[in-house]
Amino acid sequence: MPEPGSESERIASLLSGLPKGEGVIVGPGDDAAVLRVREGRDLVATTDTFVEGRHFRRDVSTCAEVGTRLAAANLSDVAAMAAEPRWALLSLVVPPSWTHAECQLLERACARALAPEGAAIVGGNLTSSRGPFAATLALLGEVERGAAWTRAGARPGDVLAVTGVPGSAAAFLAIALAEDPPSRSRAAHELVERVVAPPSRVRFARALANSSAVHAAIDISDGLAADLAHVCEASGVGVRVLETSLPADAALEAAARALSALAGDAAGEGALLTRLRLGASDDYELLLMLDPGKWSECERLAHELGVPLARIGEITAGSARVLATAAGADAALDMPGWDPFSSRG
Amino acid sequence: MPEPGSESERIASLLSGLPKGEGVIVGPGDDAAVLRVREGRDLVATTDTFVEGRHFRRDVSTCAEVGTRLAAANLSDVAAMAAEPRWALLSLVVPPSWTHAECQLLERACARALAPEGAAIVGGNLTSSRGPFAATLALLGEVERGAAWTRAGARPGDVLAVTGVPGSAAAFLAIALAEDPPSRSRAAHELVERVVAPPSRVRFARALANSSAVHAAIDISDGLAADLAHVCEASGVGVRVLETSLPADAALEAAARALSALAGDAAGEGALLTRLRLGASDDYELLLMLDPGKWSECERLAHELGVPLARIGEITAGSARVLATAAGADAALDMPGWDPFSSRG
Repeated sequence: MPEPGSESERIASLLSGLPKGEGVIVGPGDDAAVLRVREGRDLVATTDTFVEGRHFRRDVSTCAEVGTRLAAANLSDVAAMAAEPRWALLSLVVPPSWTHAECQLLERACARALAPEGAAIVGGNLTSSRGPFAATLALLGEVERGAAWTRAGARPGDVLAVTGVPGSAAAFLAIALAEDPPSRSRAAHELVERVVAPPSRVRFARALANSSAVHAAIDISDGLAADLAHVCEASGVGVRVLETSLPADAALEAAARALSALAGDAAGEGALLTRLRLGASDDYELLLMLDPGKWSECERLAHELGVPLARIGEITAGSARVLATAAGADAALDMPGWDPFSSRG
Repeated sequence: MPEPGSESERIASLLSGLPKGEGVIVGPGDDAAVLRVREGRDLVATTDTFVEGRHFRRDVSTCAEVGTRLAAANLSDVAAMAAEPRWALLSLVVPPSWTHAECQLLERACARALAPEGAAIVGGNLTSSRGPFAATLALLGEVERGAAWTRAGARPGDVLAVTGVPGSAAAFLAIALAEDPPSRSRAAHELVERVVAPPSRVRFARALANSSAVHAAIDISDGLAADLAHVCEASGVGVRVLETSLPADAALEAAARALSALAGDAAGEGALLTRLRLGASDDYELLLMLDPGKWSECERLAHELGVPLARIGEITAGSARVLATAAGADAALDMPGWDPFSSRG
């Protein structure tokens, strides 16, 4: 495929064939998109940027997988507000090392991940750069007026629950980068699948929204402990997490075993597993603070929708964040989340 | 000022002191912002990215000026849809060469340029990178349902008018970069002012929207000829531009004179001036296709609001884009617009 020459040719080629979204009055190609928000709905707006070498590596992920995960990162934020995804703007900063076809693969994968959740790309921007590739997606959603979940509503006694398997993204990356050259073939197939195409929690969030069971919610894209700290601070509460209740997962355990073996520290396997599950990991899963009287209803909804949901602890009065360890002791639940200004990546 | 360490500290420091916007139900700091669109309004959504070395140079522009122009670029797109600016998401990709204080200067300047137009920053993203600094602003606005201007409504007989002085941005940059080291002190003061703090055309656009005079509109951030071509293609019309009617401007003429002298080609001054006015130049001005029966009303509104408005030609049937030159000949109006994939920058 020849490289299209000018920006307008490249943009036209990117925009052609994109699915048209609902509520789109004017789509891509004008100064701005025009969108119709339904009556009685609030708008939610979020954005996420992936930078090459920082949020992904091309020797570990394909262009299409990056597009899929960029969509997933934003969908997860919209789900964590109990909202329906609707419209997206995709901005690409493209160095010479990326071909137009690669940009298109990323964009198409992003659009393909958004479509089943009800969202379409309605505009964006394309520019060249000397530096690393960067993609910014801004995602808009709709939520019934006044019904958005925030981080601030958790109450003592709330059930703490999490979807999926926290730590999967961290384990995947650690395994892939453990040896040179990087290779994700060392990771279990289920782990790879879960990370390269994260399941959307939008449908589950919308079902929960109807149940009024959720007092507060956050997505755990920084890591479970760090995002839980955000909720506790915003809500003025503490928390007690039971290590033995964290989701058991064979692929994650195999990763911890392999990593500790590679590090020549087989005895450290348990501590490593805990660190993977609670520490920095960009998993697009929901952490939910639930009305205890509605827990069984939440469990039923999760089961119906095929969403893994684990009850991992309880919100407490005060401000202490405690991990009741598998060994039977109480430890401070204090583990840094992912930080794009840290030295990693 | 010490460098804040983690992403959360940096984000908290960036978010503190931002003005709270109208219609903001949940502001920065949650998974997403929650916003209330007024009844009977459509939403408009646009985004623009500035990359260091491509859209700006730090030896020519200050961090605050970059923030101001980033706001102006997006405000101009919203104005070109006849909409009111409301909410913005600002995403920064930050290399080690940018301090936190510099990011803050850019962000504050951006917020300061948005505020008088009715818009506030309600969220965003911050990440580090090895590569050049990049800032992406996504701007949302509101427009009365069905009232957005597009590029597609121009009709034969329409008056073609433009605000401000097209070519100012190109002239500023050419003058600043004409000698080594770059220096904008060679440019006339009025030219510098116009480019580093572009006046907003939002108020004028909103006044025009009430008059129903506008059949089509576009902002000329690519360059007058290129953006006019976009309108002609989208509307299925031609155009005739009168070179002698293009806005006369002493600062622009002085720039053309200085540039041709520097190039040792004093005789080329006229051609250079035409190229500056019609060619690639990221001016945040409006190109308007107006009902000829309402031209005097448009002139009056422009005068009342202190907006320079020039009647520069007419929309024609067919598809020819013609420049009636000052020399009395007809020439093809065909000049490439700004292209971020060209070799410049």
